[in-house]
Amino acid sequence: MDKRQMGWNKIREIAGEQGVKTMEAVQAYSPRLANMALEFGYGDIYSNDTLDSRQRALVTLSSLISQGDHGTALIFHFKAALRVGLTKEEILELINHCSGYVGFPKAIASLNLFQQAYSEFENEREDVSLSE
Amino acid sequence: MDKRQMGWNKIREIAGEQGVKTMEAVQAYSPRLANMALEFGYGDIYSNDTLDSRQRALVTLSSLISQGDHGTALIFHFKAALRVGLTKEEILELINHCSGYVGFPKAIASLNLFQQAYSEFENEREDVSLSE
Amino acid sequence: MDKRQMGWNKIREIAGEQGVKTMEAVQAYSPRLANMALEFGYGDIYSNDTLDSRQRALVTLSSLISQGDHGTALIFHFKAALRVGLTKEEILELINHCSGYVGFPKAIASLNLFQQAYSEFENEREDVSLSE
Amino acid sequence: MDKRQMGWNKIREIAGEQGVKTMEAVQAYSPRLANMALEFGYGDIYSNDTLDSRQRALVTLSSLISQGDHGTALIFHFKAALRVGLTKEEILELINHCSGYVGFPKAIASLNLFQQAYSEFENEREDVSLSE
Amino acid sequence: MDKRQMGWNKIREIAGEQGVKTMEAVQAYSPRLANMALEFGYGDIYSNDTLDSRQRALVTLSSLISQGDHGTALIFHFKAALRVGLTKEEILELINHCSGYVGFPKAIASLNLFQQAYSEFENEREDVSLSE
Amino acid sequence: MDKRQMGWNKIREIAGEQGVKTMEAVQAYSPRLANMALEFGYGDIYSNDTLDSRQRALVTLSSLISQGDHGTALIFHFKAALRVGLTKEEILELINHCSGYVGFPKAIASLNLFQQAYSEFENEREDVSLSE
Repeated sequence: MDKRQMGWNKIREIAGEQGVKTMEAVQAYSPRLANMALEFGYGDIYSNDTLDSRQRALVTLSSLISQGDHGTALIFHFKAALRVGLTKEEILELINHCSGYVGFPKAIASLNLFQQAYSEFENEREDVSLSE
Repeated sequence: MDKRQMGWNKIREIAGEQGVKTMEAVQAYSPRLANMALEFGYGDIYSNDTLDSRQRALVTLSSLISQGDHGTALIFHFKAALRVGLTKEEILELINHCSGYVGFPKAIASLNLFQQAYSEFENEREDVSLSE
Repeated sequence: MDKRQMGWNKIREIAGEQGVKTMEAVQAYSPRLANMALEFGYGDIYSNDTLDSRQRALVTLSSLISQGDHGTALIFHFKAALRVGLTKEEILELINHCSGYVGFPKAIASLNLFQQAYSEFENEREDVSLSE
Repeated sequence: MDKRQMGWNKIREIAGEQGVKTMEAVQAYSPRLANMALEFGYGDIYSNDTLDSRQRALVTLSSLISQGDHGTALIFHFKAALRVGLTKEEILELINHCSGYVGFPKAIASLNLFQQAYSEFENEREDVSLSE
Repeated sequence: MDKRQMGWNKIREIAGEQGVKTMEAVQAYSPRLANMALEFGYGDIYSNDTLDSRQRALVTLSSLISQGDHGTALIFHFKAALRVGLTKEEILELINHCSGYVGFPKAIASLNLFQQAYSEFENEREDVSLSE
Repeated sequence: MDKRQMGWNKIREIAGEQGVKTMEAVQAYSPRLANMALEFGYGDIYSNDTLDSRQRALVTLSSLISQGDHGTALIFHFKAALRVGLTKEEILELINHCSGYVGFPKAIASLNLFQQAYSEFENEREDVSLSE
């Protein structure tokens, strides 16, 4: 299987159909950026299992909170983290932990984004179970 | 036990006698900053076990790499991560993972710092076993 | 008085009832993050009077502008700065000063946020005087 | 000609009437910040032709993407870049290039902003040609 | 008096002969960058007295600590802050305050730089009094 | 030709034998990080000629200056920029341009690094011509 297909499989695994749609939108406007994100980002980086999906989610979220991400990436990755099995309590504690390393403004801004992401995640789960 | 003492215990647990000495040097110059780092940083944040020490190390390292830390904090926390049980392979993979989220320059700069930290960690372990 | 109560008092003093409500919303979703912000952030840091409230406001605002804060924290702290007595002219000059240290994009982005914060501050003051 | 007038001329040249209006809005609220941006930013920096407008646009956009600009400055400068002659393809490739140096989250966030900027640029061009 | 001369006067006032030498070294290698820093940075920004030198020092230091400055600028501006009259205690408290807004790693890194700057400042003062 | 080999060819082209050695050192310690940098960073990103090497150098340098790179990456890429044909004057003007977008501290810090890089670049060129 080539790296691009591995990337699509990985994004579906960790971010679900919503994640696939997000990447399809990137691909529609900039195929080359999407292909690099799929082949390198999801295909190559995630192909290695020295760290599992939950550990990777901790690393990704801490990086985005520390960068002061606006929300696009944080909401996507908060939902992916819940999907791969981090609990709400673990993510809240990750934000608490970050407050000592990046300060309260970034911690509180990311808490607001997590509230939005968690509520979207719950609604999307309901939609799935209702449609089954 | 009060929070400050909990902070000293935690810093000894995760960073060893070298970590204690680093904090004592901060305390000698700025007692109030050291006390806040001990009571809040190590006493309060680390007192909660929703995330264990290895998960916290992943979060801390990702935050420092993403901030472009100069080395003071990264070397301290690379060594602490090894001490609480992250393997060399897991830390190298954490750096690989970060390359997709913060770019190669910060990933490679942190690899250089990890080489230094790993070598110090190995030497300090030898010193301990030789002095036993 | 314990640190958490000192924190609530301080947030009421510098940020008013709106500030208290903001922190209550954080507390409703993540009690532990709110308690750390209150005990350490507002209780401990602000308990020392080596720097007064107006000096602390200059430091806080410069930090947030330099971090490229999205607005949540900047609007809160612009209003707190006006409340503790920094004038509109002093805050505009702080933004001017920052342009040389962080560049024009962050200076102009924070000017836009200050316009919004100043207008909210004026309206909230009117509401208070109308309700008296 | 004095530097401030040179600044107005330069901003009209690279950012058009929309750019002039943006700076007039800054000037209406903070004349001193606008004058510094005009005299130093546009008057002084851009007065030197060692780098041409298209090269400066590459430098400006890369800086804003790397800073994680929220959008205010990026949308303004994406449109200015198109106006001075960078093609859509060159700007998309600039974003691709940045993905290796700042990571995918900032690259994808800036792609979203570029979509908005490009569409505004096209509409404004139509408006001009319709009004001619 | 022209802005460049105002810039030289201001840099001598706030940073002393050492500060003048630092800027002369910039000027020797890149006259245009030095002239922009003198005319805009020191000549224009500092010409306004809505904020006094001590207030500007608080703003500058907070910005540099929040940016994770490597040391070149922080050591220069820590010494300038002491020179314009901020006390050692006020600067230590500024660092304490920043720990809540940018996290402990940047606070502790800047404490290390302040130790170096303070010791240089004391030595330079002795040199001056010995040479009198 | 596979992407990894394309990466080695590109790094040799833009950064010379010194650049190859730098990447070999990364590979010796972390083969996977080096392979990702070669295949994705140099093999994939640089394989596209919508932007030429000199334009890419402007983008890379602006990104690194804006991130406050410590020097490892900036010195490498300043030398690569000279090698692909940016002149000393163009790079100095790039730094001048950045001063308005990221402030003077990062501009002056990068000027210091450029002085070191330029002098290394000149010496390495002499070594090559002497050994011929």
